[in-house]
Amino acid sequence: MAEFELIYQQIAPLAGGADDVLLGIGDDAAVLQVPEGYSLVSAMDTLVEGRHFFAGIPADDIAWKALAVNLSDLAAMGAVPRWALLSLSLPSALAQSTWLAAFMAGWHALAQHHHIVLVGGDTTASEQLVVSVTVMGLVPHGQALTRSGAVVGDDLWISGQIGDAGLALACYDAQQLPGRVQQQRLHRPEPRVLLGQTLRGIASAAMDISDGFLADLAHLLSASGGVGASCQLDQFVFSHEVAAWHHTNPQALYPLVSGDDYELLFSAPVTQRSYLFALAAEKKWLLQRVGQIIATPGIRMTQYGQEITLPQRRGFDHFIAPDIMPVS
Amino acid sequence: MAEFELIYQQIAPLAGGADDVLLGIGDDAAVLQVPEGYSLVSAMDTLVEGRHFFAGIPADDIAWKALAVNLSDLAAMGAVPRWALLSLSLPSALAQSTWLAAFMAGWHALAQHHHIVLVGGDTTASEQLVVSVTVMGLVPHGQALTRSGAVVGDDLWISGQIGDAGLALACYDAQQLPGRVQQQRLHRPEPRVLLGQTLRGIASAAMDISDGFLADLAHLLSASGGVGASCQLDQFVFSHEVAAWHHTNPQALYPLVSGDDYELLFSAPVTQRSYLFALAAEKKWLLQRVGQIIATPGIRMTQYGQEITLPQRRGFDHFIAPDIMPVS
Repeated sequence: MAEFELIYQQIAPLAGGADDVLLGIGDDAAVLQVPEGYSLVSAMDTLVEGRHFFAGIPADDIAWKALAVNLSDLAAMGAVPRWALLSLSLPSALAQSTWLAAFMAGWHALAQHHHIVLVGGDTTASEQLVVSVTVMGLVPHGQALTRSGAVVGDDLWISGQIGDAGLALACYDAQQLPGRVQQQRLHRPEPRVLLGQTLRGIASAAMDISDGFLADLAHLLSASGGVGASCQLDQFVFSHEVAAWHHTNPQALYPLVSGDDYELLFSAPVTQRSYLFALAAEKKWLLQRVGQIIATPGIRMTQYGQEITLPQRRGFDHFIAPDIMPVS
Repeated sequence: MAEFELIYQQIAPLAGGADDVLLGIGDDAAVLQVPEGYSLVSAMDTLVEGRHFFAGIPADDIAWKALAVNLSDLAAMGAVPRWALLSLSLPSALAQSTWLAAFMAGWHALAQHHHIVLVGGDTTASEQLVVSVTVMGLVPHGQALTRSGAVVGDDLWISGQIGDAGLALACYDAQQLPGRVQQQRLHRPEPRVLLGQTLRGIASAAMDISDGFLADLAHLLSASGGVGASCQLDQFVFSHEVAAWHHTNPQALYPLVSGDDYELLFSAPVTQRSYLFALAAEKKWLLQRVGQIIATPGIRMTQYGQEITLPQRRGFDHFIAPDIMPVS
C-alpha cells in the first residue's frame, strides 16, 4: 500500500478541523494560529516496540499510549493541548488498513477527548515499530508550570495512585496476567491535563512521573536549585494490588521506582493546602500530600516516623534496563 | 551511559538560547513565544537507517540530513525556521559519546546556519537507528506558501539542479563511488530556506522536491484543483554527471523521478518572470523555468517540441521501494 494512500485514507479523515488550524495535513507543513497572550508549549516523545511496549500489543493501545505520554508532558506544564504531529515507522506487516485503522481509532479516542488535532507527520517503513509524537499546546504568558519553582516549606503532592503500571510490567515479566486495573494503567494511562491547567498559579513546581517517583522527584529538586524533600511513605495510598506487591519486598520501594505512572508530581505552598483538598473533593481527583520541600539536598523518606534507606535503583535507564520501560 | 547524561552532555550545550525560547531543554516541554502577526508552521519527518540512509554513514551526515529535510518543508512554506525537537532512537552501539558528538556537530552546523534552536525531544534505545525531527517556524499571517494556488497560465519553476542525489544512490546501488557533488547532494542537501521566504507574495504555489519531480508535481497539480502542467524537458539544466546518467536510459527520466532533491518546485504568474530572473542573477541562485500550468489535467512533457511518454514509475514509495529512498 502506497505511503500517500496510507496517510490520506487512514489519518486525514481523523485529523478533523479547528479554527486555529489554518492549514492541516496534506501540504509540506501545517500552518497554525497561536492566539495573542499565549505561549506555545511543545514536547516530543517516542515509543519503541520492545522497549516501551511489547511487540504484538493492540494497535489502539500503542496509539493511545504514544499520545498519552506526550499529553502528560503538556499537563505537567499546565498547557491546553491543541495540535499533534505523528511519525509512524512501520514494519511492512503492519502497513495495512486493519492495523492502521485500529491505531487511528486508539489515537482518535484520546485525541478527541483532549481536543487535540492531528496536523501532520509522516509514515515510513522500518524493521521495528517506532512511534514518534510531537504535541503542541498553549498556556497564558508567564503561567507555564515548570520543575524549577519548588521552595523550602512547600508541600509535595502527587495525583492519583502510582505503581500500578509498574506492577503490570512486573507481572508480564513473571509470565503472569496483571489485574485489569494494572493493565489499563500500563496500556491506557490518563494524562492529567485538566489537573495541570488547574494547578497554574497554585503549584510552585510540577512534572509528570514517568521514570518513577524517586527519580523524577530528584529531577524536580535538582531543577529547583538543589533543595531536598522529606517524604512520608505512610502517606502514599496504593491500590490493593500495588500494596501487596510492595510488601513482597518493602526495601525495593517498587511503586516509587517502577515508573510509567503519568501522574503529576508537584509542590505547592502550604497556603494552598486547603484549596487543593477542596479541589480534590469537588473534582473527585485523588490528590495525595506525600512530603515537604526541605533545605537539605536529597530525598529523605520516613515511615511512621522511622527513617527508610532508599534503594539504589530509583528509576529506569533506557540504555541499561533490559525490559519494557517508561517513556521519559 | 544513562539517558539523562546523554541528553545533557551532548545536546543541551548545543541547544543555545534565543529570546523567543522562554524555556528550553530540561523541563517536561519547551515554552516558546510566537510573535504577534505571525503564524506557526510545523512539520515532522523521520529518517530510518537502511531506508533513508545506509547503515554506517557518518553520524554528522545523518544529523544534517534529518534536519535538512525538515527545513526543506519550512522552506516550501516560506517560513523562517525557529525551533526544533529531536527524537533519537539509537542502537546501543551508537549510544556513546563519539557517535553522539559527531551527530550533534552535523546537526549544529546546519542549525546554526538557519538559526534554529533545539528545544526538546528524547533519546531512546532501539535496534534500528531512527531519527525523528519536528521543526517549527514562523510566517507572517496569511503569507504561507501552499501547494494549492497554481493557476492556469502560471510558469512552473524549480530551484537548483535535480537528479544528483538520485545518481548518487544509483551509483551506490551499482557498487560504484558517486562523484563528490553527487555525494554531497545526497548526504548534505541544502534546504532552500531563503528562497522560500523570498517567494512569499511571488509564487502562487510551492513545495519541495523529495519524492521526485514528476511525483511531487502531480501532488501540486492535484492540490491546485486538478490543473495540469506542460513541461519542456529541454529546459532542465542537469549537472554533467546527471545528464550522462539520463542518456543511459532517456525513457526512464531518471533525474525527474529519482527524488531526494530538496529543491523547491513552484508556480508563479508570468508577470513575475522578469523579477525571478533578476532575483536569480542577483542572489546567484539557479532558477529554472521548466513549464507552464495548463487546464488539461495531468503532466505533459515535450522535448524540442516532441511529446515524450512519461515513465510508469514517477517517484518512490516507502513500502514498495526496496532500497534507500527519499524522505517524503
